[in-house]
Amino acid sequence: MTAEDTFARVQASFDRQGMMRHLGATLVRAEPGLCEVALPYSDKVTQQQGGFHGGAMGALADIAGGYAGLTMAPEGMEVTSVEFKINFMAAFQGGELRATGHVVKAGRRLIITTAEVTHIDATGKTSACAVMQQTLMVVPKTY
Amino acid sequence: MTAEDTFARVQASFDRQGMMRHLGATLVRAEPGLCEVALPYSDKVTQQQGGFHGGAMGALADIAGGYAGLTMAPEGMEVTSVEFKINFMAAFQGGELRATGHVVKAGRRLIITTAEVTHIDATGKTSACAVMQQTLMVVPKTY
Amino acid sequence: MTAEDTFARVQASFDRQGMMRHLGATLVRAEPGLCEVALPYSDKVTQQQGGFHGGAMGALADIAGGYAGLTMAPEGMEVTSVEFKINFMAAFQGGELRATGHVVKAGRRLIITTAEVTHIDATGKTSACAVMQQTLMVVPKTY
Amino acid sequence: MTAEDTFARVQASFDRQGMMRHLGATLVRAEPGLCEVALPYSDKVTQQQGGFHGGAMGALADIAGGYAGLTMAPEGMEVTSVEFKINFMAAFQGGELRATGHVVKAGRRLIITTAEVTHIDATGKTSACAVMQQTLMVVPKTY
Repeated sequence: MTAEDTFARVQASFDRQGMMRHLGATLVRAEPGLCEVALPYSDKVTQQQGGFHGGAMGALADIAGGYAGLTMAPEGMEVTSVEFKINFMAAFQGGELRATGHVVKAGRRLIITTAEVTHIDATGKTSACAVMQQTLMVVPKTY
Repeated sequence: MTAEDTFARVQASFDRQGMMRHLGATLVRAEPGLCEVALPYSDKVTQQQGGFHGGAMGALADIAGGYAGLTMAPEGMEVTSVEFKINFMAAFQGGELRATGHVVKAGRRLIITTAEVTHIDATGKTSACAVMQQTLMVVPKTY
Repeated sequence: MTAEDTFARVQASFDRQGMMRHLGATLVRAEPGLCEVALPYSDKVTQQQGGFHGGAMGALADIAGGYAGLTMAPEGMEVTSVEFKINFMAAFQGGELRATGHVVKAGRRLIITTAEVTHIDATGKTSACAVMQQTLMVVPKTY
Repeated sequence: MTAEDTFARVQASFDRQGMMRHLGATLVRAEPGLCEVALPYSDKVTQQQGGFHGGAMGALADIAGGYAGLTMAPEGMEVTSVEFKINFMAAFQGGELRATGHVVKAGRRLIITTAEVTHIDATGKTSACAVMQQTLMVVPKTY
């Protein structure tokens, strides 16, 4: 696959995710073994203190890892999350989140990834938010 | 605290979560050491295959565990998620999700919880969706 | 399989684990979907404060979950750990640990389990030590 | 602290771990925010197929992360594992394992780490074995 094909493959799946569309997430990068997604701050993603919700960080990290994995799956296949584990380091208001997923090991049946979630404030300052570790299963694409 | 007080305490925090309001989640039960939340199916919570998004299951399990923990926190304190880990067992379309969190151990500084996510279809049939394990930190309430 | 066959199947695999033999662990129960193992206190399983080592609790929980999974695997197959996550609740000296694994979902390719680790002191008093959540993969038995 | 002090602080705790002594583990490196430990192959660390036991990889990763964290704890304090999660990528026989822990975030109360476990065979060839993510709690040293 060319670089454009890899990005297009991920974008096509991303566009089908109603949850990401509604939360306002966008695809930033998709290369073999890597994917970066962005989520701007809005009242659609807040917890009780007004910061980004842990569930939003989890969802963003889940798809960053998942789409990093998809770039390594054979054509005709896609991936589903078997499980993930996320540690939260800080909560932030405003700005946007970036989650970057990396493939640690791409097996025939299972793919292991990690992801980091970073906050970028209005001035461009970045801060670590969360780290994730994930297991994906390679499954036939059915749509 | 009376049972009504416990429910009201959780509801007051829940109502401040923009993400839960936007996704359409509701609080079902909150008792000492236990919390149940519901999330009806809509295009705000779907993944690329049209099923409930893993990120939605994760967010729902996170708050079910978190609010189970809140019921055990001293007055004037609340809880934040240190980390959680979730295993997905199946994906479902339609109906609604229920996540029920349970406190496994309530320490002075840390609280450990588990949660199960169950799908209920239009006929009332229930199916296991996900299981979660979580660490919470007890922190002063600042609002 | 009869109950005796299930226990014998697990015992046969258990006996091949050099690490469990060396640490002094024993198989207590193995029934469809459940396995209980024991580990007596000794200086082979301690951390720097003299309590049971987190690594010993992790290893014990790993095999309790793994052997619970093995009881559900088809004949000719066995299981390997894809990943596990363990929360520690307390450390204890003396007595013994018991870890009990339960199958949460037995799929054709993956099995999900949980396990609880409990401490039993010299007087028989039991205390919760740790909880674990695990993913197993079903693989052909090669020996 | 000087580099020698950091190594000596970790070694002093390591030497008190009966389990590590009995399994044959050794401390290789300890620098601010990093720790590397080694475990040679022996029948004390095997599973049923003769490879390194997942419980041994877990215990090794747990202390690599824990001692990386200890290097960041104030004097008079030490760390205990709140929880860890480990993904296994491959099993190996012979040679030795190396686990390297890294501090991702050192808070006042909690420290988050990751660790990689690598296998080194008799010819010096290295292979990825496992990745871990961990939460530590900073506690007063009591001995």
